[in-house]
Amino acid sequence: MHEFKYKRDRFYCEKIKIEGIAKEYGTPLYLYSYKTLIDHYRKLKRAFSKFSPLICFSMKSNSNLALLKILVKEGAGLDIVSGGELYKARKVGVDPKKIVYASVGKTDEEIRDAIRANILFFNVESESELENIARIARGLKKKVKVALRINPDIRLATHRYLAVSTRGSKFGLDFETARRLFKKRKRFKNLSIEGIHLHIGSQITEAKPYKQALSKVVDFIKKEGIDINYLNIGGGLGIIYSDERPQTAEDFVKNISPLIKDLDCRLIIEPGRFIAGNSGVLITKVLYIKDTPQKIFIIVDSGMNDFIRPSLYKAYHTIVPDKRGRSYFKKKVDIVGPVCESGDFLAQDRHFVRVKKGDYLIVLGAGAYGYSMASNYNLRPRPAEVLVKGNKSYLIRRRETYKDLMRGEVIPPGV
Amino acid sequence: MHEFKYKRDRFYCEKIKIEGIAKEYGTPLYLYSYKTLIDHYRKLKRAFSKFSPLICFSMKSNSNLALLKILVKEGAGLDIVSGGELYKARKVGVDPKKIVYASVGKTDEEIRDAIRANILFFNVESESELENIARIARGLKKKVKVALRINPDIRLATHRYLAVSTRGSKFGLDFETARRLFKKRKRFKNLSIEGIHLHIGSQITEAKPYKQALSKVVDFIKKEGIDINYLNIGGGLGIIYSDERPQTAEDFVKNISPLIKDLDCRLIIEPGRFIAGNSGVLITKVLYIKDTPQKIFIIVDSGMNDFIRPSLYKAYHTIVPDKRGRSYFKKKVDIVGPVCESGDFLAQDRHFVRVKKGDYLIVLGAGAYGYSMASNYNLRPRPAEVLVKGNKSYLIRRRETYKDLMRGEVIPPGV
Repeated sequence: MHEFKYKRDRFYCEKIKIEGIAKEYGTPLYLYSYKTLIDHYRKLKRAFSKFSPLICFSMKSNSNLALLKILVKEGAGLDIVSGGELYKARKVGVDPKKIVYASVGKTDEEIRDAIRANILFFNVESESELENIARIARGLKKKVKVALRINPDIRLATHRYLAVSTRGSKFGLDFETARRLFKKRKRFKNLSIEGIHLHIGSQITEAKPYKQALSKVVDFIKKEGIDINYLNIGGGLGIIYSDERPQTAEDFVKNISPLIKDLDCRLIIEPGRFIAGNSGVLITKVLYIKDTPQKIFIIVDSGMNDFIRPSLYKAYHTIVPDKRGRSYFKKKVDIVGPVCESGDFLAQDRHFVRVKKGDYLIVLGAGAYGYSMASNYNLRPRPAEVLVKGNKSYLIRRRETYKDLMRGEVIPPGV
Repeated sequence: MHEFKYKRDRFYCEKIKIEGIAKEYGTPLYLYSYKTLIDHYRKLKRAFSKFSPLICFSMKSNSNLALLKILVKEGAGLDIVSGGELYKARKVGVDPKKIVYASVGKTDEEIRDAIRANILFFNVESESELENIARIARGLKKKVKVALRINPDIRLATHRYLAVSTRGSKFGLDFETARRLFKKRKRFKNLSIEGIHLHIGSQITEAKPYKQALSKVVDFIKKEGIDINYLNIGGGLGIIYSDERPQTAEDFVKNISPLIKDLDCRLIIEPGRFIAGNSGVLITKVLYIKDTPQKIFIIVDSGMNDFIRPSLYKAYHTIVPDKRGRSYFKKKVDIVGPVCESGDFLAQDRHFVRVKKGDYLIVLGAGAYGYSMASNYNLRPRPAEVLVKGNKSYLIRRRETYKDLMRGEVIPPGV
């Protein structure tokens, strides 16, 4: 459920008409619903209530400060993957003991910053990283908590870029290596290896792979008699982009409960898309209708630089016009952006409502991996971001200007 | 030919050791060779000398101000695709009569700005755009030059995202529409439709598709008896990324000369990759070596946010270590970045020289569509850019800071 819908024939976010917002702030525009964001967080918290897990919102899905602040005020922790994310996490005042840090490529500086910030723990992805964290901790005379990320070798029905737990992926440790490291964990004087991390991928709509992966890990823990304080089961819960019927949070918990209920450790989850995905949309304006013998192109003012998911992952996103329509284009429709590349599209071969120049289109499910992946390709300033709460709207990131596009550039004299 | 190579056992850019540059400016780093850039521009100019065309460098491939300035000083014009590119084009002082503007999605503001800037002409992509430019020109009481972009419906052996001239692509006009528009061109009082534009795609390594496309267009011009002042044959000349043997500029000219030699109009070409591609590299540092049963992962400090071509287009880029190696890893190697996504790789399944933590790797051919497509995904600051000229290096864009990552963000009070 989300707060983006038609009321009579106009599309709304909470209590505000999209048309008014689009005119006020311009397009392309990322728009978020406060209520949807909070609702999704609470839904997850409720579903997991018997475990009272630490819910670390995955910042890579969306790192807008205002949105983070809202979640942190609700009690969320943060799942970070870089020094930049640590920096912004601290800006919103999250308790550092609610920060967990994953990434296969943490630099020495990033590790040092995170140790100094007293984060809860690192999710460790390789033996060489473990040794590196130990070395840096020793230098700082600190004892540092880590969780070992296990790659359970599970195949998934998602885009191959979103599947991160097959053998031959760069992520995590195989069971054999994990076993060896747990056995010698006492030898790392500056580390406390006290958690296991598991993250099988993103946009997973069914329970089966989760259960498989988790079973393998729980069996491993029990069989080896490994004593841990944290079980971090990652994120990846799928959402509805089109006609998926993803497991609900309740179903998910029901499915995994039997596996984890008698483990004596703190549960951590790392949702990103599940919370932010349907909390945001991308609003774009129709610039041209181009009728060709093969198909109709609706050319809009938002491109792959603003929103790369359709191009990069072939992601399907529902797109609706601001004014509800009843008549449809007779030909198949591609909704494409202004970027000079064939990969620049938002939708392909759709049966689409007849729209015209100046109309607004709303790309649903753009709250996660939308702005966070945006670029300035074709020298396009990145969109503004606006938050709606009830009948009020707030600019939470201003649109970039042309001047922003050359920040930090220098023409050396004499060149 | 380019200025990135081993001298004895160390890798150089012109007269400077990569190692020194990497230590001085940090990694990841985009590095450009002044000499290579100029050489490629001159090579093209020479090859085309008998036509003395206007060479409009394609800014979308690389829009660094210092590099643009160098080319503009050499006499280059600029091929732009957005208001942002127009803005930067003007910053480097290019003669506006050397600017041509293509894009399927020009906004009213962008069209207005370009008309006011007195650019040479617009490449028009649809009938609705033509009418829109006419309307805006009328409002500004100007007579505006345009070229019609023709889609010659040619299939290409390149990545489907780089092929832009098949039927069913969003680009250009089919012959029938172009014919109709040329017939009534007098009726557009504020337009002078006096050019034809053709751009079949990018990274085209053989002459055949060019010749096919150009023949179709030239036949069209002759058959219809269309009088034009400009023939813009676009860009797309392929370069060597791996073991391609692309046509040379001379071959290309030899191949197309017979087709265009008796057309009485100014020739325009729009090279991007051909000039910038091999003029730049991406330097990255090895963070970890992760040995797994299946393969070795060389984890480096540069990710898909810095350089998306391998992930988005499955592009192959030659990668070499800063120190020449003789011994190879026994297993297949993936070179991957720190971004939390399986799509985050620079190379897959390579036979690769044995390197270790702290070594530098150089990704060749990263001068075009490198920085220009970079993002802050995973909240990673974008790299610095450095230019080498002989034995001197110049910072031409500073590395982004963590603070840059939250520029323009506002947390509304009470939210």
